[in-house]
Amino acid sequence: MKLFNKTVIIGTGLIGGSLGLDLKAKHLVSLVTGFSRHKSNVELAKKLGAIDCIGSSLDVIKDADLIILAMPPEANINFALKIAKKIKDNCIVIDVGSTKRDIVSKINRIIPGFIGCHPLSGSEKRGAANISAGIFQDSICIITPSARVNKKALNKVCRLWRRLGSKVVILTPEKHDQVLAFTSHLPHIVAFSLVNSIPDRFLTLSSGGLRDTTRISASDANLWSEVFLSNRENILSCLAVFQKKLAFLKLALERKNKKFLTNILLTAKKKRERLG
Amino acid sequence: MKLFNKTVIIGTGLIGGSLGLDLKAKHLVSLVTGFSRHKSNVELAKKLGAIDCIGSSLDVIKDADLIILAMPPEANINFALKIAKKIKDNCIVIDVGSTKRDIVSKINRIIPGFIGCHPLSGSEKRGAANISAGIFQDSICIITPSARVNKKALNKVCRLWRRLGSKVVILTPEKHDQVLAFTSHLPHIVAFSLVNSIPDRFLTLSSGGLRDTTRISASDANLWSEVFLSNRENILSCLAVFQKKLAFLKLALERKNKKFLTNILLTAKKKRERLG
Repeated sequence: MKLFNKTVIIGTGLIGGSLGLDLKAKHLVSLVTGFSRHKSNVELAKKLGAIDCIGSSLDVIKDADLIILAMPPEANINFALKIAKKIKDNCIVIDVGSTKRDIVSKINRIIPGFIGCHPLSGSEKRGAANISAGIFQDSICIITPSARVNKKALNKVCRLWRRLGSKVVILTPEKHDQVLAFTSHLPHIVAFSLVNSIPDRFLTLSSGGLRDTTRISASDANLWSEVFLSNRENILSCLAVFQKKLAFLKLALERKNKKFLTNILLTAKKKRERLG
Repeated sequence: MKLFNKTVIIGTGLIGGSLGLDLKAKHLVSLVTGFSRHKSNVELAKKLGAIDCIGSSLDVIKDADLIILAMPPEANINFALKIAKKIKDNCIVIDVGSTKRDIVSKINRIIPGFIGCHPLSGSEKRGAANISAGIFQDSICIITPSARVNKKALNKVCRLWRRLGSKVVILTPEKHDQVLAFTSHLPHIVAFSLVNSIPDRFLTLSSGGLRDTTRISASDANLWSEVFLSNRENILSCLAVFQKKLAFLKLALERKNKKFLTNILLTAKKKRERLG
């Protein structure tokens, strides 16, 4: 059963394009139109079957039942400003970005039907070249409705993600940003700083440990710079916690206190094992 | 062509056992005897075909042409002390541990034929249950001979690792520890501290980024505590570099300086991309 009729995806990269691919494969929408700031991206998305057609003018927006904003946060907000007065009354607009408080408060002011979404299905890769089927299956999608959300629209968006195979978790935008600062933004900050600490000439004398620990540092610099700035205060709090844990381990090492050191590592190991 | 006749592996876990498996499969040695502090480990290694027989007494050592120390650093050193007077004159003793300066200086005093080795093929897993064929193929093995090494013995050890498919890199024990402090020990310290920073209740709201960044924090606490302590000074220096890089990124975020922030991330991205 189709959940939406005309669907427009703005930004046909890894997440936007993969969404198009799965929405079409699972027959959840009738027609998918793609827009992108980069012609090659939208053309590749079309070639890969992620969209049915390439949007030629913003007029397409007028008929849309579902609009998916899948560009970096600032571009999403600017685009929402542009289309706010063109969309149908019952059109549902969602995004798929990594922070929520900022975007939900800004877009909800102009598009009351906006519902923030964050599928935890991204990676360090970007662009239509990395479009892939099934990335939402068995993944978590956090949905962050504002207080005045239309319940019917929210249910429809939840159903959409569930039909894509995701486990839906509903949080306030504020709670989302607080949690993700720890579980996603902090690991990125750490990975970027770690790779920047290693002298170039030593890089090749490494193995899977360094590769895995720093994988996400190959993420897009501009996108993550925007993410960090839009969740700045939460991230600074997490960073303070991390710096404290690091100083703690350093102290155990400085003092050659094997028992203290082993206990710290054991706590970490047990916690990590719960992650699976 | 066989490189060694009787071979004894002390510690038949992930590295020791996998070595036995490949040495036998590639017919590089004639008979592999296994010892372990844990009966179940050595029995499983035998069952998996990683060793030909289980050592029943230390007398086996007397006939050995190659002895591989594959326990944690302190256990390796204690074992070397025990066998130093029992081994044949031309017996070659190697280890496979993560730090080299300490072990090479201690064991070389009592066993001049000792050659430190570090195959970069480990993982967070341990024990005979994780024995696996081919883990040395296309991997790096760092060999750290002391200044007074027997050149013929060194060549034989290099040939052994090359026949296992590894790329051999020769470094002094001091240089090894300096490099690995950055490329392996620091990532471990960071991963342990990162997972310890995350509130338990937030753990499940994460994706592949956190999982990969913290994979190695599931490593054995006692083993890594020994590794950290035996390379303490180098690690403390690396930690200071990392803390500086972290503070740098934090400053850019505090000042909301997007250009500065993006530059830091871009430098990291370019560096990480060279790792492949």
